[in-house]
This record gives sequence, structure tokens and C-alpha cells, in this order.
Amino acid sequence: MKFTINRTAFLRYFNDVSRAIPSKTAISILTGLKLDLTNDGLQLTGSNADISIESFLPVSDEELDLQVESVGAVVLSARFFGEVVKRLPDETFTFDVQDNFQTVLTSGQSEFTINGFDANNYPRLPEIEEQNELKINADILHDLINQTVLAVSNQESRPILTGVHFLIDGNGLLAVATDSHRLAQRRLDLENITGTYNLVIPGKSLLELGRMLADLKEDVSLKINENQVLFSFGNTKFYSRLLEGNYPDTTKLIPTDANTTLQLAAGDLLSAIDRASLLSHASRSNVVRLILNPANNVATLSSTSPDVGTTEENLQIATLSGEELDISFNPDYMKDALRAFGATDIILAFTTNLRPFTLYPSEDKEHYIQLITPVRTFN
Amino acid sequence: MKFTINRTAFLRYFNDVSRAIPSKTAISILTGLKLDLTNDGLQLTGSNADISIESFLPVSDEELDLQVESVGAVVLSARFFGEVVKRLPDETFTFDVQDNFQTVLTSGQSEFTINGFDANNYPRLPEIEEQNELKINADILHDLINQTVLAVSNQESRPILTGVHFLIDGNGLLAVATDSHRLAQRRLDLENITGTYNLVIPGKSLLELGRMLADLKEDVSLKINENQVLFSFGNTKFYSRLLEGNYPDTTKLIPTDANTTLQLAAGDLLSAIDRASLLSHASRSNVVRLILNPANNVATLSSTSPDVGTTEENLQIATLSGEELDISFNPDYMKDALRAFGATDIILAFTTNLRPFTLYPSEDKEHYIQLITPVRTFN
Repeated sequence: MKFTINRTAFLRYFNDVSRAIPSKTAISILTGLKLDLTNDGLQLTGSNADISIESFLPVSDEELDLQVESVGAVVLSARFFGEVVKRLPDETFTFDVQDNFQTVLTSGQSEFTINGFDANNYPRLPEIEEQNELKINADILHDLINQTVLAVSNQESRPILTGVHFLIDGNGLLAVATDSHRLAQRRLDLENITGTYNLVIPGKSLLELGRMLADLKEDVSLKINENQVLFSFGNTKFYSRLLEGNYPDTTKLIPTDANTTLQLAAGDLLSAIDRASLLSHASRSNVVRLILNPANNVATLSSTSPDVGTTEENLQIATLSGEELDISFNPDYMKDALRAFGATDIILAFTTNLRPFTLYPSEDKEHYIQLITPVRTFN
Repeated sequence: MKFTINRTAFLRYFNDVSRAIPSKTAISILTGLKLDLTNDGLQLTGSNADISIESFLPVSDEELDLQVESVGAVVLSARFFGEVVKRLPDETFTFDVQDNFQTVLTSGQSEFTINGFDANNYPRLPEIEEQNELKINADILHDLINQTVLAVSNQESRPILTGVHFLIDGNGLLAVATDSHRLAQRRLDLENITGTYNLVIPGKSLLELGRMLADLKEDVSLKINENQVLFSFGNTKFYSRLLEGNYPDTTKLIPTDANTTLQLAAGDLLSAIDRASLLSHASRSNVVRLILNPANNVATLSSTSPDVGTTEENLQIATLSGEELDISFNPDYMKDALRAFGATDIILAFTTNLRPFTLYPSEDKEHYIQLITPVRTFN
């Protein structure tokens, strides 16, 4: 196995595949990067227990400038190999596997000989049939991931809640995440869907996938089987295992009526919550208090720490209507929620100070909604 | 005590003074920022056991836009106060100390009330007489610090070696640091020096001072007394305690003759050492090996890790003369040394593979020289 390739272009693909490669793991070959060279191009594979990523670097890509001299396969310690390639002096490097998987890298005057491993010992990736295929624009999928994954649970006590529930049917895609304190739900209209899919994708997988989709314009194809989902885009295949078990029914959690509604810019509220959280973080309970007075059109955010001090701020609001309300909540949940809205006006809809309240864009309640459970206090 | 000030301009000074303020300490008032307001301006003070920094924010500075309403002094938790000011919504903020040192910050619609402390409980800074005053250009002092502080010891077993030795007399300033494995010596010509000063400044103090001097053009004034040194520049005073004890005599450590000399670009050698260190770091001994063959004009750098692999590289050299040499050394010492030279040609001068070797700019041996002790190996 021997090839020459452009170093910078290679590193771009390498960095993508590296997302799946753990630095430590019980199965030591998984700390390796698998390289498969054919006359058509070079395939890079990285994998951990949850995610596998394959990238194909074709000889036809001029930027890669891939020159295949002889085909073959090898596994190299991913981290060390990456550190070496980053520091090689020349624009290109040559990769030459010799006896006993010893791999010689040459670039300019620099030569490295790295101990490699037999690629036959690398686990095979799952095969997913071609028949069930959906297409979603990368930009939209990227947003959908960021809008939902913030609400997944970090606690392994209920593993199913560490994933995002994807429900796909003739109506489109409904993505829901909840850690039982908050919930985020995104609805996506999709056309020409035949069949129904019900799957729970680990939040960590989606976070990595989301990072890879940033700034991508093309369509992402989804293929689903019983315990795996495959996202394909460009020359990259991203596999994630699915979580086993039934996701709880969340449809009844979202209140449909409201007694008090507040409209304001998500960014303004985020800045104010961020300030107030300085005090809540210095106190044991970590709550901020919101007092809504529709008669005077005043919304006041406050927080107190006995050790440090107090803060109070009248929010810049667009509209406030309904009943008076005095409600407290975790500012960190609110910050996560607000970041997901970006620079848009949102509506907060409350029933009572003990019931969950909802947040949604003022222009579109149907496609995105978040839910936060208040904290009961004794002010 | 009450004033209004431009938030961004205030934060610049605050960040400088914060360098001295520890986040945790046995003397809890030292985690505070002291603010002293007179009709001339606002003085900020921060201090830890080693360093004290005072900045004066004059009413005459238009950028600060400081409006004094009533004078006074208070101490506030520096970290919390800084976090609040960073997040305040308006361009300016008002600072108003009320009963019992409760301090009210207002900016736009946001109001914070912070628990303050009596400034009388804050320790007094040392007073240093005005008579002994030296002036050094900030740029030059910044470089001098970076060129020497890399060689100070991190180990408290010989505390005197954790500082840089400054010897000032009619010849100028000689600054030396050594951790007994390596040494860095910088000589600075100074005119009109009367008297002799012999002081050891803690490396950590100099690191902080160096960061504050970056991009400064003016002169720094030095005032020295028995156990303190004061650096003054702009509106800032930087105090450091001095280390007690006698610094070892380093004048005889630097070899004056050489059997082999190598000239090359510091940057090229740094890149090559950085590559080779990938393998030395993966091995227990952390050494790289340099073989010099003047007859063939070849300098070869290599390193080996039994677990990971090997590397070898012929260096790009300018000149190589003298006897053959096979020498090993710690690549991390070499990297620190080379970074201090920047983009210049340097000379490495060797006697034997067991004796320390020197590095100096090819154009000026007199003003800057470094020394590295080789590692004895059994190749």
C-alpha cells in the first residue's frame, strides 16, 4: 500500500473521521484510524461504541492530489498519526506500508516510521439496506439537531432520555427531547414519505453530526434499520447506534392554553438572564424570579444570593397580556432554550406559576416549541 | 462614594489589576478589588502575596468619561464584580456605595446590589523611595523577560532558582535564569547607571509583568528597595517582592570554546525538533539525538519510541564546521530555547557530547546566550 496526497486536504477529512475515534477504549484497535486504499481512492474509517464515520477521498478530487502507487489497508494509532501529519514540513506526504505493517511517512526531509496494525482485525461496520431512504437539507438538519439536543438528559438513570426521539411518518418528522425538567420539540414538513419510522438517536451522536453539518449546503440522506441509522453526505458516511426502548409519550405534556403571555426579543431576554444568573449561581437554589404585571406592562427579573447581593431588571418587552404572575425557574435551562431561538422575537406562554410554561417563535408556534418546568419557591 | 464611568474603558484597567488578584487565598480580603475614588480619579488595587498592581484612572481621560459625584473607598469581590461589569447592558455604569458598603451598580435597566467590604481592612502596599530609579524601554524589557524567564526553575527545592537574577551596575543590566539543566542570559546596555543593584525577581511576577508590557511603547521605570521592586508605566504600578538569598555564580558555566559549530534558522530547527519530540514524548527517556557530520555537511535529527516508531530528518543548515558529534538532549528545553530567538539565524556551539552546549544569535553573541545540558545516552 503506497500513496502520495496533499497534506492540508487530507487533514480536513482526517479531522472529520477523528470525531468518532476515542483516545482511550477497552478495544484498543478502535483508537486507530483505518485506511483502505483502492485504485478509486482512499477510505478513512473511525469508530467508537456509538458512532462510526467513513470518509472516501477519491482520486478524482484535484485538491487531494491523491496518487495511488499500490493498494492495501492498514490501521494506525489515530492520535499519533494525526499529530505527525499536522507537523510534516512539505505540502504533500507519501504513505508507504512495508513489512509487518510498518508505515513510512515521508515529507520533505522528514521521515517517520510508525508501527501499524493489521486492518483485518478492525471491526466491520454495520450494513444498512438501501431501500429506506429519506433526504433532509443539511442546514435544516443542523438547526433541528441544535434546537432539540439541548434538552436531552445527561443522566444514565433513564437511558432513553439521553437521546432525541425521531418520529417520521406521512406528516413529516417530529423530533422531541426531554430530560423531564424541560422539553424541546421540532416539527419538519417532509414530502413523499412512505412508511413510519420511530427511533431514538443518542444526543452525543447528534452533537457530533451537527458539528460536521455546519456550513454544509447539500442534502443529507438518512437510512434506518432496527438498531442503526446512517447519515450520508458528500463523501462521508456517519453511522450511529439507536437507543433501545420506548420513548415516553410527550404529546400531552405541552399545554395548549395560556393565562399570561409575554412577547420579547430572545436575545434581550438571554442577556438579562445571563446577568441574573451571576447571582443565582452564587446561591444554593440557582433560581431567578420573573414578576409579570400586565396592567402596568412591566416584567421584572430578579435574583438574590445572601452572600453576594441582589439584582433586579425591568425587561425590554414587546407585549405583555393576561393575568399577573410571579414565577421562578432555573436560569441555565432558560439560557439553553433562548440560545436555540437565535435573533428572533419569542412568546413565553404561562398558565400558573406551578405549571410548565412554553416558549416559541412569535411567528411560528407549529414548528418549534420548548417547555420549561418552573421551580417552586417560598418567597 | 459615587461615580459613573465608561464600561469598556474601565474593564481594560480592571483586567490589568486582576492579574494580581487570586481567586482563592487564606487572606480573604485579597480576593477583593480595592477602589479608591478622589476628585482626581479612581485608583484600582489588586494584590497577592507576591505581586501588587495599582492602576489610576484619571478624570482627565476622555475615553474613561469618569464622572465623580462623591469620593470614598470600598473593596468588592473582584471576580464577581468583573463578571457583572462585563455583562452590564449599557455603555456606562454608575457605582454607588451605600450604607454598610452595599454597592449599587446601575446600567440601563439593570441594577445590582453587591456586598462590599471596608477598604480600611485592605493591606497597605509597600512604599518605595523615589531615589533609585532606572528607565528601560517597555519593548526591550518585554523581550528580556521572555528571553530569560523560560529557564527559571519550577521546583521549590531551591527557591532562589525560581527567579531571574538581575545584576545592574555601570556596565548595564545582566539578567540570568537557570534551573541547573539550562541557562538563559541577556545583557542590556544601559547608560548613566550610578550604584549597583543585585536582585532576584520571581519568574511568576515577571511573566505577569511581561504580559502587561506587550505592545507598550513607553519607558518603564524601575525602583528597587531591599525586598521589593516597583515597575511603573503609564497609569500603572506593578510591585513584586524579591527572592531572598544569594543567586549562584553562573559566570563560569558558559563555555567559551567550541569544537563543533552549526548555524541554521531557529524556526527550521524548531519545526524539526517539534516533529521529533512526538516520538520522544511517546518514550520514557524523552530525548532526541543530533548527529553532526561536518565532512559531509549533514546534520541528522532522530528519535525513537519502541512502542510507536522512529523518525529521522536531515536538517536544513547554513554552515557546519569542526569535529563530528553525536549528542542527545531534551527536546522540550530546546523548543523553549528556540522560541525565544524568534525568526533569526542562530549558532549552536558544542564542545563534547557530555558538556553543555550554547545557542546564540549568529549576529550577536554578546547580548544573548542560552545553555543546554545534554542527556547522556548509551546508543
